[in-house]
Parts: sequence; structure tokens; C-alpha cells
Amino acid sequence: MTSGGENEKMNPTPMEKRRTIAITVGDSAGIGPEISLRCADQLKNQSNLDIILYGCEKVLNRVAEHLNLAPYSQIENVGVIDPDQMISGQATATTGLASFQAVDLAIQHAMNGTVDAIVTGPIQKEAWRAAEIPFPGHTELLAARTNTEEYCMMLTSETISCCLATIHIPLADVPKALTISGIERAIRLASITLSKKLNRPAAITVCGLNPHAGENGQFSHGEEENIIKPAIDLALAQGIPVTGPLPPDTAFTPSQRKKTDAYVCMYHDQGLIPLKALSFDDAINATLGLPIVRTSVDHGTALDIAWKGIASHQSMLSAIHYAYQSTL
Amino acid sequence: MTSGGENEKMNPTPMEKRRTIAITVGDSAGIGPEISLRCADQLKNQSNLDIILYGCEKVLNRVAEHLNLAPYSQIENVGVIDPDQMISGQATATTGLASFQAVDLAIQHAMNGTVDAIVTGPIQKEAWRAAEIPFPGHTELLAARTNTEEYCMMLTSETISCCLATIHIPLADVPKALTISGIERAIRLASITLSKKLNRPAAITVCGLNPHAGENGQFSHGEEENIIKPAIDLALAQGIPVTGPLPPDTAFTPSQRKKTDAYVCMYHDQGLIPLKALSFDDAINATLGLPIVRTSVDHGTALDIAWKGIASHQSMLSAIHYAYQSTL
Repeated sequence: MTSGGENEKMNPTPMEKRRTIAITVGDSAGIGPEISLRCADQLKNQSNLDIILYGCEKVLNRVAEHLNLAPYSQIENVGVIDPDQMISGQATATTGLASFQAVDLAIQHAMNGTVDAIVTGPIQKEAWRAAEIPFPGHTELLAARTNTEEYCMMLTSETISCCLATIHIPLADVPKALTISGIERAIRLASITLSKKLNRPAAITVCGLNPHAGENGQFSHGEEENIIKPAIDLALAQGIPVTGPLPPDTAFTPSQRKKTDAYVCMYHDQGLIPLKALSFDDAINATLGLPIVRTSVDHGTALDIAWKGIASHQSMLSAIHYAYQSTL
Repeated sequence: MTSGGENEKMNPTPMEKRRTIAITVGDSAGIGPEISLRCADQLKNQSNLDIILYGCEKVLNRVAEHLNLAPYSQIENVGVIDPDQMISGQATATTGLASFQAVDLAIQHAMNGTVDAIVTGPIQKEAWRAAEIPFPGHTELLAARTNTEEYCMMLTSETISCCLATIHIPLADVPKALTISGIERAIRLASITLSKKLNRPAAITVCGLNPHAGENGQFSHGEEENIIKPAIDLALAQGIPVTGPLPPDTAFTPSQRKKTDAYVCMYHDQGLIPLKALSFDDAINATLGLPIVRTSVDHGTALDIAWKGIASHQSMLSAIHYAYQSTL
């Protein structure tokens, strides 16, 4: 993830309506502050876009100095930290709490209409845990604060979109975490989101869980027959164009990708491995099913290169663009 | 998988030494016979290559008629079936037994030096099971007949090579099937094979099992720390250049692929999803650790398009080429 410096990519379609987007800068010890500042700086003259950075003003000014950028003016000063009391690359309970507070405030502002969408910078989940935040990550916090029961994480790029039936759990726990209703929900939310975007019924491909999709129970414990197929049948009954469960390894071949607008994947890496193998820095994360628009970068805090000015802000630019489009 | 008809691809390097390669034609009900015949026909004038098809002569002649090819002369008539008593697209205990017998004989011939290498066409594993063959597939049969204890399946293409620590088992069973010795073996066999091919120490990248490689135990049951890292340490102690365990989703990005000669993957789809997403018909399967050379197509029997003359033989051409190269 090195700096791309592609100024043209932000605005492939004209931004006709004025929108205010909150960027939560993520963990201060990571690359979040610098990529947020770079995006804000690059987009500061967009006539239809106001960007407000949610984070510690002193930290942001310190990072701007490092990057030789002018201080950014539109900052919602939240999650205040003394920059002299923290070390770049070292996420702690303090930086975790601060990043949580920024997201929490941005959600309030999105709910009351102060901002039109939220783009979240990368947090360090361990730092949230160290700060005893009762949410494992952004998605669960967003769901709780917006009283959303039906939501789904989608990773999307120009090349491929993947909705995940399960997210950040051990691989060993995936088979038991799959439910008919959870998979049906992912299919339905993917269909609603992509159909709206494409202005036609979106084609959904559902992956199996097991190698060869179990090959009729030979390499499975019946998950395809007992959980995935019934979920697909529920979606078909709603008129959603959906195919599957496909053998996971053939689901992502070039020919199958041509027939697919969005994938529903059974576990994190089933979707993220092909997404990151096929996409170049432009993948983003969107939470489907929320009453507010929220997108995110698809990468982590990259603590090892934090504050060095070498992190690429391409994924955040894409996330801002996708968030803007989603508000139209 | 439609016919490519690229005659040039077979011979990127001159074939200097004469070799005899056994092609086992796979399940007669599938696309194995037709792709075997196409390869044999296409390569019949290669001066340094003799191809012998292992399968039922009558079935092969019947399929050749369908394809408007002249009957192929070099056939080891084994696994005899009456073509009037079988239906293309329907694999049965009869076709399963026949395909097993062909592989079994080819292994004998490779062991006694009658042939220099084996390329296997696709079998239907259910048909082997229906015929009560006591091996789930090729690899286990090869290991048993050659008294090989240490072996590993590698999928490889021009773009990427993946060695698998576990293969055809339910995803739910993967975490318990992983062992330090199994992963160390996969690393070692991958290193030996690729280093020989590249004529320098091969760079091996080992994937984690869990999302984010467990993120320090947050999304794992400690498999990275307790099983994968110790295996990597054993390999490092042997001087093998090996990196990992990497988060599976970032392991296959373009930048990491540049640093990697072969991946060691924890389960079937972790390796095969990126391989098939990134490769176009040219991926093949090789069994590492055997005393004989064996490669295979990377696809199945494709029963739905069998005997229709539309199956691509590109993967089998690649498998033949890789097998030839491996005998040098």
C-alpha cells in the first residue's frame, strides 16, 4: 500500500448534489489520520462535497506537519489525545477509546442528519478490546446504535462485490455460525443494494462452504443441502435471481464473474481472498441494511508504516466516492 | 471451459529428450476421453514425445468418431467397457472401476519404467466410491502404490502455485486436521520442487487459517500460534526461505504474489479460489513427494458437457508439458 497520487479517480461521475461526509480517522497510531488528511486535502475544492474529519485535532495537526500539508480546517475534535503521550505505530487502550468515540459521535450525527454519510478509517480491534469497548468493531457498533437487526458486510471494488454471511470469527466456528436466515438475509441485502445501483435485478452467486460444494455430501457435513440451498430457495421464492451453491473455487473464475453482480460468501476469506487478489487498492467495505450510509477502507491500521507518509489513500478515496454515490 | 484451439502453447521450450507419457483418460462418462484424444492428436508429431492413452479402446474410438478425429493408435486397452452399455454424462460404478484400473496400471508402468510420467484425466470420485474402490482419489492411490508417506498436492499455473496442507475434507474438519508435521512437509516439498524448477531457493509464503491470521488470537483458536508458526520455525531451521503465517486475504495481493514462488495453504479453497480466479485454463495439479512424475488437469469430469466436443483441453496440455519438464 504505497501512495498512488492519482488525483483523477475521485470523480468518475459528476457530483451534482451537495453532501457532507464524516470521515472518522481511525486509530491515531495507524495510517488512518494521514490517509484521511490526504483525502480531505485532495477533495477540498470539490464544490459538492464537504468533508469533516472526526478525530483529535492536535493529532491531525501533528500528522499534517509530518506530511507537509496545511492544517485541515473542518475537524470535529473528538477522542482527544495528547500527541506527545502517544507513539505512532503503538495502538493502546487510549487510542482505542479515542477512535471509538469518534465513530460513536459520527453515527449520532448521521442519525440526526448533521452529516449525510460516514466513511470510517481503520481502527485497531485489539485497542477497542483493551479499552473495554463492548463492540468487536465498527459494524456491530453501527448496528447497535441504529437499532439495526438485519445487516451485512459487503466488500466491493470495480471488479467484484462480496457479501459475507459470517465475518470475524475463527474458521472452525464458521460451519456452526451459518444459518438459513443469515444467508437469506445476505442474499436479499446484496440483491437490494446491487439492483438499486445497477437499475436492474442484480445476479447473485452463492458459494458453497466445502470443497467442491461438498460433492453431494462426500466432503461436507451437509451444510450445502441443509443450510445454503434452503436459503437460496427462500430468495428464489422472492424473485431474486440467484445461483448456487457453487463450488467455491469455480465461483470466481473469469467466466463466472461475468455472470455475477455480487457474491454471497460463507466466510471472511472466501470473499476477501478473491477480492484482494483481483482488486488493486480500490476495494472498500460497505455495511448493508443500515438506515445510514457507511463505507470504510478495506485495509487495516498498517501500524508498521504509520505516520511515514507512504500509505496509499486510494481505498479511502473509493470509500468516499461510494458513500457519496449511495446518498444520491 | 470451451475449446481454445491454441496449438502454440504446448511447446514453449524445446523438448530435447524423448519421453513417454501415460495419459489415463479418466471417467469415460466425462470429458476425459475427448480432451485426452485432442491432446494426443495435437501432439502426435512431436518428435520427443510419445503419448499412450490408458483407457477403453472402444470408448476412445467412439469418442474420436464424435470429434471427427482419426482413431488414435497408441492405446493401452484397460478398463474395458462396452460403449453401448454406458451413457455419456452418467458416471457409474462401471465407469468408476474402469477409470481406477487405468490409473492403477499406469502407476505400475511408471514404477517399472515403461512410461516416464503419468498425466491423469478427471475421474468421478463418487463413481470410485460406488465401485467400492478403497481410495478417495488419485493422490491416495498413488501414495499407496508407491509406498509414499510424504506427499502433497500442488496446484500450479503460470501465475501462482499453491501447495495444500489439507485437501478433500469438510471445511469444519480442517482445523483439527492441521498438524505441525503436515504443514512442515508441505513447506519442504514445495521448497524442493520449486527450488529445483527455478534453480534457486524458492520463496514460500504460508497462509494463516483464520481471518486476519487470527489477529493475535482474537478470531482463532490459536491455530496460527500452536500449529502453523511451529511448522514455519521447523522449515526456517532447515534454511528454507519462508514467510508467514500471513492473513489469508492479503497473502494473494499482487504485491505479495511478486515475493512468492509457492504458497502453502491450509485448506482446499484457500489455494484454489485465488488460483482459479487468477489463472485462465492453464492450471494443473501435481503430486509432490512421489518417486514418479504425476500431473493432472485441475478440473473435474464436467459431465454436463461430456462427449459434446466443446471441452477445452488446455489444462491437460499444460499438465503434459509440466510432466515432461519434470522428467528432465
